[in-house]
Amino acid sequence: MTRSNPYAGNVSDLLSRVDNFAVIESTLREGEQFANAFFDTEKKIEIAKALDEFGVEYIELTSPAASEQSRSDCKAICQLGLKAKILTHVRCHMDDAKLAIDTGVDGLDVVIGTSSFLRKFSHGKDMDYITQQAIEVVSYIISTGLEVRFSSEDSFRSDLVDLLNIYTTVDKLGVNRVGIADTVGCANPRQVYELVRTLRGVVSCDIECHFHDDTGCAIANAYAALEAGATHIDTSVLGIGERNGITPLGGLCARMYVANKEYIMGKYKLHMLRDIENLVAEAVDIQVPFNNYITGYCAFTHKAGIHAKAILNNPSTYEILQPEDFGMTRYVSIGHRLTGWNAVKNRVTQLGLNLSDDQVKQVTAQIKALADIRPQGIENVDALLRQFHEKVTKQTAN
Amino acid sequence: MTRSNPYAGNVSDLLSRVDNFAVIESTLREGEQFANAFFDTEKKIEIAKALDEFGVEYIELTSPAASEQSRSDCKAICQLGLKAKILTHVRCHMDDAKLAIDTGVDGLDVVIGTSSFLRKFSHGKDMDYITQQAIEVVSYIISTGLEVRFSSEDSFRSDLVDLLNIYTTVDKLGVNRVGIADTVGCANPRQVYELVRTLRGVVSCDIECHFHDDTGCAIANAYAALEAGATHIDTSVLGIGERNGITPLGGLCARMYVANKEYIMGKYKLHMLRDIENLVAEAVDIQVPFNNYITGYCAFTHKAGIHAKAILNNPSTYEILQPEDFGMTRYVSIGHRLTGWNAVKNRVTQLGLNLSDDQVKQVTAQIKALADIRPQGIENVDALLRQFHEKVTKQTAN
Repeated sequence: MTRSNPYAGNVSDLLSRVDNFAVIESTLREGEQFANAFFDTEKKIEIAKALDEFGVEYIELTSPAASEQSRSDCKAICQLGLKAKILTHVRCHMDDAKLAIDTGVDGLDVVIGTSSFLRKFSHGKDMDYITQQAIEVVSYIISTGLEVRFSSEDSFRSDLVDLLNIYTTVDKLGVNRVGIADTVGCANPRQVYELVRTLRGVVSCDIECHFHDDTGCAIANAYAALEAGATHIDTSVLGIGERNGITPLGGLCARMYVANKEYIMGKYKLHMLRDIENLVAEAVDIQVPFNNYITGYCAFTHKAGIHAKAILNNPSTYEILQPEDFGMTRYVSIGHRLTGWNAVKNRVTQLGLNLSDDQVKQVTAQIKALADIRPQGIENVDALLRQFHEKVTKQTAN
Repeated sequence: MTRSNPYAGNVSDLLSRVDNFAVIESTLREGEQFANAFFDTEKKIEIAKALDEFGVEYIELTSPAASEQSRSDCKAICQLGLKAKILTHVRCHMDDAKLAIDTGVDGLDVVIGTSSFLRKFSHGKDMDYITQQAIEVVSYIISTGLEVRFSSEDSFRSDLVDLLNIYTTVDKLGVNRVGIADTVGCANPRQVYELVRTLRGVVSCDIECHFHDDTGCAIANAYAALEAGATHIDTSVLGIGERNGITPLGGLCARMYVANKEYIMGKYKLHMLRDIENLVAEAVDIQVPFNNYITGYCAFTHKAGIHAKAILNNPSTYEILQPEDFGMTRYVSIGHRLTGWNAVKNRVTQLGLNLSDDQVKQVTAQIKALADIRPQGIENVDALLRQFHEKVTKQTAN
């Protein structure tokens, strides 16, 4: 859609990667930082296999430096022979990097805090030290032939000059990707667009982005980043992660489906989303939110009379996502006070009853009156419609 | 924050209303279109009073044309004498408008579908007809002295020229606000910014925006709209509405708090958010999502060792929202395999135990080993720390 203008529109649209990006699925790294999360080896393997079958390009795992089990799980997943590339996320330390390389991963996601907050209250290092550390660790990983990403942490509260300097340095070393991370969830889409677009002009390597959702922009920020030329987006199933989490895999699919449906449907098995979400929700003992993207139980429920009428004529009127593309179904609710006679008429037809428009309007008023007292299930509505039909048929016969 | 540049930055920033906007709270209108929702009179009044006390500027109610009870509830809420202005949301019909005016509302939110989809599959009217209808209904409402908003539906799939024509027409009539609605949830923030900014240059009245969340941009779009000069944002509690809903009140507060904390804290009683969300969640029989903005149970839980350490030094390192401003508390989780010795050291100090850094590192390794098998509750961790302390104290004593 961004390129539909025959005059090519804004030249910056040419940078857009909304139809050419990869997902770095971090349920087994960021997701392990979710309050409830504890994955044993078996569950990690089950999740990794499901994500691989779904079609994600990368699977990111907890650092092998975190614990002995983390290290052996990392090895086990590397040996599964998945299509997805396996990454692990490590601090910018030689010890961690070496431990990671020994697990057999395809690549390392290296991270260090660059904001004044993190420099002061976390690791206590200055930019010169960080740069030296980055050069040492990144060069070493490159020398092993593995893929490497170098990311700052809390990038949106880091000094822009510091950021561009260090990214330029690692880009020249031959890093595969540089990463921008909104670690605290403070960034907004226009800000993301500006930062990524600036960075796009400075480095030649790929650009990965990681967005927390504390202030509700994790999906929109991912989209803005892709519009500005980012190439990789971090996700987790249901968005689980530190605090309230990051860009959810399903929500990102919903957004990107609107940008380029064929592209997303071609690369991911979207009908697997619901099962993968249920798998992870069960593993970390949470309920899938009522309003979850695509798979939330009301995502395709239409209620207001005016909506119901149009949906029955043409679902695209009030649906930007087609439920059948995700293995879901549409539901038009009619037993409530907001119902409309067109929706009721549709049900009348489904039941094989024969009523005039005026008669449908009469019975709709009866449904509304009943539903003003309490909502009516479809069985009640159907019974009412049948009774009404019987009554008017008898009257006509008399 | 948008105005922090002393050279005033981009001239378009002067349009920004991120620190000067009003909320139109639509839980009792859009929220009634949520699959589960059925509010009786008593519950509507309870919700309206709570929202009023919270500080929302407007409360929007279901059209009195929907059902007899909707009409009498509308009257009842108008008679409560709330500080918030009471609006009702009606189709662009004289009959509906007259019915609404008789309820005693402060204003009417008038809506009509302008997209080709809605014109073809919903009401079947052309733009000339829509314009005539708008002129008649809007002029009539203005003549009664009530506040009036005229909104298109599905604005982002409507013809731009059609939209600007009809908005210009009603602006000249003296409408209070024009409305943009992303009825299907397809819009993205940069698109919203462009449309609102264009509209801002065309009409002199206020601009209201309504965003559905099907593709995860409802909060970010609201923010982009305010940056572009929109003045009013529609919300509902927990975002409840048609399908997976609209911009949530709590999520919008989180976003706007980051833009201008003093402004948001000055106008809304943020510590009421949790109670209001629980009230609505109970009324419509849903659970507050695990990852809900601000009030989700893990919104302020910190887990990874590196996060925990920095948070204990300075919460702003990994928190953009301060939990105490919302009546919430922070929790640093330590009984898991991602824990770090700095977080453990903090707990050791809280318990009044005396251990050297090396000893804390030893006991941290023990916690990690246990937590590799299963996560440890705080009671277990505390018991382990006390045992360890006793043991090393005895050793020192010997």
